[in-house]
Amino acid sequence: MLVAGEHVLFHRARGFGRDTHGASPPTVLRHSLVKRKFFRLKLQRERTFAPVRTLYNLNLRQSGKMSEKIVLYYFDGRGKMESIRWLLAAAGVQFEEVLLTKREQYVKLLNDQALMFEQVPLVEMDGLQLVQSKAIMNYIAEKYKLSGKDLKERAMIDMYTEGLNDLMEMRMILPFKKPDEKQAHIGVIQGKATSRYFPVYEKALNNSQYLVGNQFSRADVHLMEATLMLEELFPTILSTFPNLKAFQGKMRSLPTISKFLQPGSQRKPQPDDVYVKTVMEVLNIQIP
Amino acid sequence: MLVAGEHVLFHRARGFGRDTHGASPPTVLRHSLVKRKFFRLKLQRERTFAPVRTLYNLNLRQSGKMSEKIVLYYFDGRGKMESIRWLLAAAGVQFEEVLLTKREQYVKLLNDQALMFEQVPLVEMDGLQLVQSKAIMNYIAEKYKLSGKDLKERAMIDMYTEGLNDLMEMRMILPFKKPDEKQAHIGVIQGKATSRYFPVYEKALNNSQYLVGNQFSRADVHLMEATLMLEELFPTILSTFPNLKAFQGKMRSLPTISKFLQPGSQRKPQPDDVYVKTVMEVLNIQIP
Repeated sequence: MLVAGEHVLFHRARGFGRDTHGASPPTVLRHSLVKRKFFRLKLQRERTFAPVRTLYNLNLRQSGKMSEKIVLYYFDGRGKMESIRWLLAAAGVQFEEVLLTKREQYVKLLNDQALMFEQVPLVEMDGLQLVQSKAIMNYIAEKYKLSGKDLKERAMIDMYTEGLNDLMEMRMILPFKKPDEKQAHIGVIQGKATSRYFPVYEKALNNSQYLVGNQFSRADVHLMEATLMLEELFPTILSTFPNLKAFQGKMRSLPTISKFLQPGSQRKPQPDDVYVKTVMEVLNIQIP
Repeated sequence: MLVAGEHVLFHRARGFGRDTHGASPPTVLRHSLVKRKFFRLKLQRERTFAPVRTLYNLNLRQSGKMSEKIVLYYFDGRGKMESIRWLLAAAGVQFEEVLLTKREQYVKLLNDQALMFEQVPLVEMDGLQLVQSKAIMNYIAEKYKLSGKDLKERAMIDMYTEGLNDLMEMRMILPFKKPDEKQAHIGVIQGKATSRYFPVYEKALNNSQYLVGNQFSRADVHLMEATLMLEELFPTILSTFPNLKAFQGKMRSLPTISKFLQPGSQRKPQPDDVYVKTVMEVLNIQIP
């Protein structure tokens, strides 16, 4: 599944499949290996991107002077990174971002062997170069105590989380669908959200402020993100889910969430054509 | 991503996409909701499937007499359950299986609300009805101490695990590919395995018996499964990965692994046409 690098496979002609076949990505990557030396010579000093940092700071890691900062490397859009941003924001943790807008930045990350599986997201924190969005989120959730108080709570939180991931992934691939497939896909998202996913969470919130146990967990963060995301597409979608609507209200009142929902936060807007174009250029994906 | 229910979406025409659109599944599920009462009346007493147990025992849960047994509900094949079987086997834990061969069994699980997101795998253990393969594996891995000794080891194990999941998922969808797409997909699997995935693990095993730290983890189990799976398709694929080959040898010598590799274990064979047909019938997936 492509959508922004982690599952670097893009089937323009047949929709997305998680790392399934397609000419572009393997070609791209072999290509990039071959071109590695060339790019190393060719690369010019990177500009400093949006927040603060340059890619060259990556070298801090190699010199053992890894920053204590948390730095996210991804596109200037939601994709596979947005749930990570939400988790960090909900935990009240500050982070910086390097926004990938040029192919060269991505190639530099590859050359620096910063990307274990040649995919973003990449999150640098605690001296680690974390890849694979689920591994990254597990780490953040455990570090900031968002994974429940015991093994059974953790299991429930994981189940709710995986369901929300599936739902959000459907939304995530929408902008990469072919124009003639988009409308059908929107229908599927709406159908699944209302018949398969939301009822589960609506029920879990009966007489309960949080999805699991009596404290805030990563599952709550993901649910907040998912419901807002779906309301963007379907403004009245929560009309038959009063618990979800009330839940949103409570979540909004949490200071960290409230802050993340303000304009100017690191929360990313809905994907647009510029985002799609950038992703495809950076990953060197050709439209067949 | 379909492949056996968890990501119940099947695009015969355009490959698989994780829960992306397609006419069948939403239709199927709405259909099944409508037909729920009908099926409830219609269902006859279930036969006892392979190992031991009948679906009716599910009611034990509702009566508070949940069995201490671990029971796996899935198709008679690998799909999304095989890595779970591997984990349990590697941990030396016994489990039973209810093998889904008929649509009615699946509908019964839906009716009993045993499937949180209307998908298998389902694993009953410790009074929980666990769904979502990653949530299930997290639970098993933590319970049986296969997740490392601290947060950083856990992060590395998760990263290696997610990479292996991606690789194995490519193999998993192969039998569901259209005939004219299979050869290309096989090429992609081989390319990605040898250029993106195996080199990472080969390097991690330099001077180390295990992928992470100095003890056996779930990442080792997944790596063993993945390398054997790929060797089935490409018998000489490990010829340029001596560490991986040596790793296999060491893993084989572990008593629990050795036992699971014996004929007659609960390890499942490579998917064949019967498996594919059964999955599609049980999930009521139509070929467009």
